[in-house]
Amino acid sequence: MEMKRRLLFFHLFFLLVKLQTSSSTSCSSSCSFDSEPAYQQQEKDRVLELPGLSVNVSFEHYSGFVTVNEESGRNLFYWFLEAVEDPSSKPLVIWLEGGPGCSSVGSEAERIGPFSINPDGKTLYLNPYSWNQGFSYSSNPSEYLTNGDKRTADDSLVFLLKWFERFPQYKGRDFYITGESYAGHYIPQLAQAIVRYQSSTGQKPINLKGYMVGNALTDDFNDQLGRSEFLWATGLISDQTYKLRNTFCSHASFVHSPENCSKISDVITLELGNIDIYSIYTPTCTSNVSDSDIPPKRRYVGNINEEYDPCTLQYSGIYFNLPEVQKALHVNPAKWEFCRPAIYTSWKDSATSVLDIYQELIASGLRIWMFSGDTDGVIPVTSTRYDIDALRLPLASPWRAWYDDGQVGGWTEQYVGLNFVAIRGAGHRVPATKPKLALVLFKSFLSGNPMPSLLP
Amino acid sequence: MEMKRRLLFFHLFFLLVKLQTSSSTSCSSSCSFDSEPAYQQQEKDRVLELPGLSVNVSFEHYSGFVTVNEESGRNLFYWFLEAVEDPSSKPLVIWLEGGPGCSSVGSEAERIGPFSINPDGKTLYLNPYSWNQGFSYSSNPSEYLTNGDKRTADDSLVFLLKWFERFPQYKGRDFYITGESYAGHYIPQLAQAIVRYQSSTGQKPINLKGYMVGNALTDDFNDQLGRSEFLWATGLISDQTYKLRNTFCSHASFVHSPENCSKISDVITLELGNIDIYSIYTPTCTSNVSDSDIPPKRRYVGNINEEYDPCTLQYSGIYFNLPEVQKALHVNPAKWEFCRPAIYTSWKDSATSVLDIYQELIASGLRIWMFSGDTDGVIPVTSTRYDIDALRLPLASPWRAWYDDGQVGGWTEQYVGLNFVAIRGAGHRVPATKPKLALVLFKSFLSGNPMPSLLP
Repeated sequence: MEMKRRLLFFHLFFLLVKLQTSSSTSCSSSCSFDSEPAYQQQEKDRVLELPGLSVNVSFEHYSGFVTVNEESGRNLFYWFLEAVEDPSSKPLVIWLEGGPGCSSVGSEAERIGPFSINPDGKTLYLNPYSWNQGFSYSSNPSEYLTNGDKRTADDSLVFLLKWFERFPQYKGRDFYITGESYAGHYIPQLAQAIVRYQSSTGQKPINLKGYMVGNALTDDFNDQLGRSEFLWATGLISDQTYKLRNTFCSHASFVHSPENCSKISDVITLELGNIDIYSIYTPTCTSNVSDSDIPPKRRYVGNINEEYDPCTLQYSGIYFNLPEVQKALHVNPAKWEFCRPAIYTSWKDSATSVLDIYQELIASGLRIWMFSGDTDGVIPVTSTRYDIDALRLPLASPWRAWYDDGQVGGWTEQYVGLNFVAIRGAGHRVPATKPKLALVLFKSFLSGNPMPSLLP
Repeated sequence: MEMKRRLLFFHLFFLLVKLQTSSSTSCSSSCSFDSEPAYQQQEKDRVLELPGLSVNVSFEHYSGFVTVNEESGRNLFYWFLEAVEDPSSKPLVIWLEGGPGCSSVGSEAERIGPFSINPDGKTLYLNPYSWNQGFSYSSNPSEYLTNGDKRTADDSLVFLLKWFERFPQYKGRDFYITGESYAGHYIPQLAQAIVRYQSSTGQKPINLKGYMVGNALTDDFNDQLGRSEFLWATGLISDQTYKLRNTFCSHASFVHSPENCSKISDVITLELGNIDIYSIYTPTCTSNVSDSDIPPKRRYVGNINEEYDPCTLQYSGIYFNLPEVQKALHVNPAKWEFCRPAIYTSWKDSATSVLDIYQELIASGLRIWMFSGDTDGVIPVTSTRYDIDALRLPLASPWRAWYDDGQVGGWTEQYVGLNFVAIRGAGHRVPATKPKLALVLFKSFLSGNPMPSLLP
C-alpha cells in the first residue's frame, strides 16, 4: 500500500543511452533479432530483479539493445519502465542525457528514475520524486569517434521505429521527448526527423505530441552571450575575464571551442575555484567514495524532503559497474562511465543553432517547453532567455512566479507555441538538484497545464 | 568549559540603533548624565540578566542611551558586549544596520550577536557564530521625520565621543566600523567625520583603523545599473521589465524614487512573486509566528550547522517587545520594530554617491573592505562590482575563490586600498543567511589577512 501511494504519480517512461555502440556479436541475450516475434523479444528484455532492491515494485521494466546499424554494429541501449497506474493509457516519455557522450543511465539514479542508489553503491532506495523511468559498451570503439548530431538523430529515429516493433502495444500512444544539456540538439533534431519521416511515409507509428528541454544548448551565439553575462552577474569571474570571454568566445562553438576561447576557459576554471559549475551554490562532493560498505559523509542541501547529495554520480559509478547489475540489465560486462570525454572531443557535426528547427516544429503544433535550472553556470538561464528572445514569438501569458508547497518554485512565461519555465535554485541537472520541483514541472508539461499558481 | 570553547573567538563589539530618538525626559535609568563619574554611568548600563537565557555567559554586556542632542532630545541606544577572551586588548567593532530606519538590535539576533531567539520568542540560545557583539523609542516622534545622512553622521560622531567618555578604558583601542545595506552611506560618512574631526582638533580618542560594508548602497547610478542586470540575469523579471527599469530607474535615487521608476518597481513586485528579494533562493517565512509557546514550523536552508530560519525577525519582534526584556536592557516600555517605514519615506538628504569619500579615506590609509552576499536582489553583487570598478583602483591580487571547510565560501579580489569579498549563497543580511561564512569574513577583516585559501 505504501508502495502504491509512493508510485501513484509515475508515468510511463523510458530512457536510452545515446551515442554508445556495440557490434552485434557483443550483444547479450537482449539484442534485437528482427525475425523473432515481438513478445519473445520483450520477454528477453524484462528485468526480473535488480540487485540491491529490497522491496517489490508494482511496475514492469525492460532493458536491452536495439540495433540501429547492422553494418557498423551500432546498438542503442534502453531502459523502459512502465507506469504503475493504468499503464495501458499513460503517455510514453523518453529522457535523453547530453554531453555529447553522457549516459542516460546516470539520470535514472539522479532522481528521474524510481531507483536511487545508496552511498554504499550497492543498495537501492525508492525515489519519491521519480518520473517513472542507459548503460553501454562497445566492442567497436572507433564508432565512438565518428559520431555527430546528424547520425544521432538518424540512429535515434531507427531506434524508435524498431522499439515500437518490439513493443507494438505502444504504437500510437502519446509520445513526448525530454532531456537536458546537449540533448538540446538531439531533441529538436529527433523531433524533426520523426515529423519529416512520418510525413514522407504517410505512416504514424510514433504519435509525437511534444518535447521539453532543460538548460539546453540551442544556439551557440546566444548561449555564449548568456553564459558570459551569467558568470559575471553572479560574481563568479573577474571583470577582466568577462571582457576577454566576450571578445574571444562570443562566436565560438560550445563543442569545438577555438584555442583563444579555450585559453579563457582555463582562466575561468582558475577563477571559479573548486565549485560545481553545474550547480553554483551547492557543495561539491568531497567524499572519497569507494567500493566499500562504509557510507561516506553526505552533504545535503535544501529542505529535508528535497535533499541533494552531490556524490550521487559516484554511487552510480559503483552500482552500474557491479557485474550482477550489468547482468540483470542484460548487458555484457563493460566499464560504465557517466560521460566519455573522447566522445565529446571527437564529436563531428554540431549545429551552430537549432532555432530554425524550433520555428519549423512550433508551426507543426507540437507542445514545446524550455526549462532552466536558474543556478546552472554551464548553459544558464540567461542563455535560454536570449534563445527564446531570438525566436520573436508573440507573448501569450506574462512573466509570473509559479509555486510549490506555498513557496516560489520558479518563474514562467508563455509564448505562442512555446512555454518557458525557470526552476528556482536548481542546477544544470534539474531533477538531481531539485527533484520535487522537477516532478511538478514534468506533471505540468505532460498535462499541458500552466505551472501552478499560488492558491488564493 | 563548553561555554569557553564556544566563545573563544568572540571579539569585543558593540551595536547602536541609528536614527531612533528619545526625548531626555523619557530615558530610563541609563540616560547619559554627564555630571556623573564614568564608572557610575557604566554600572547603570550593565545588563545584569537577560530574560530567557538559561546559561551563564562569561562576558559583560552593557546597554543604554547616549544623548546626542540635548535640545531636540535625541538619544541613541547602544548594546555593548565585551570580548570573552582578554577584553583588555581586543579591538572595538561597531555594527550599523541600514534602512534608513532599521534597528541594529535586529542584527543582534540575526547571527551577529551571541544571543539568538527561539521560535517561542521568549527563550534564547547561544549563537556559535557570534561576533560578540539597539532598541529604541521616541517620545518625540517628529524627530523621526527630519533625519538624513548628514544628521546621522553628526549624531553618530557625538555618540562615539560621549561613549568613550562613559567607557574611558576603551579610549585609543583599535576601532572598526561595520554594517550593511544603507549603512553603506552611514559608515564611510561616519569614518570621514571621525577622521576630519580628529584632524581638526588634534585629539584622537577614537583610534579608527578601518571599516567594512556589506551589500552597501554606495552610488545610485552604479547600484541601479547592477540591480537591473542582476534581476534579469538571475531570471527574476521579464525582458520587458528589464528594459523599462533600465530606462526609468538608471538615474533614480534608491531612497527617493521618482514616480515612473516606482511604477516599474510595482511591476517587479508582481513578477517576482512571493520571494524574499533579500535572499532569492531561500524560503520565505510562512509561519504564523505569534506570542505563543508553540514553536512554529521552521524551514531550514543550508547545511545542518549553518541553518537559516527565515522567521527569525518575527521571533525578535516578540522578544524585544517583552516588558521584562525592555526593562533588562534599560529601555522604558516602547514598541520595537526592525524597520520603520516612516523613517525611510521621510529621509531627507541622501547622497547620490559616497565614492568620493572612499577616495578620501583610501588615501588616508584606513583598512576598507566591501563584501557582498551574492544572492541578494536588493543591492546585489553586480552593484558592488560596478561601484568598485568606478573607483579605478590598481589591482593588488587577482580574483580567486576563498574557502571554508573545504568548500568555496565565495570569491575575493584585492585592490590597492580596498578588498572585495563575495560570500557564496548569502543574501542581503550575510550574517543571518550564512553565519559561519560571515564569521570567517569578520575574522579575516579584523586580522587584516586575506580570505583563506584552500590548503594544498
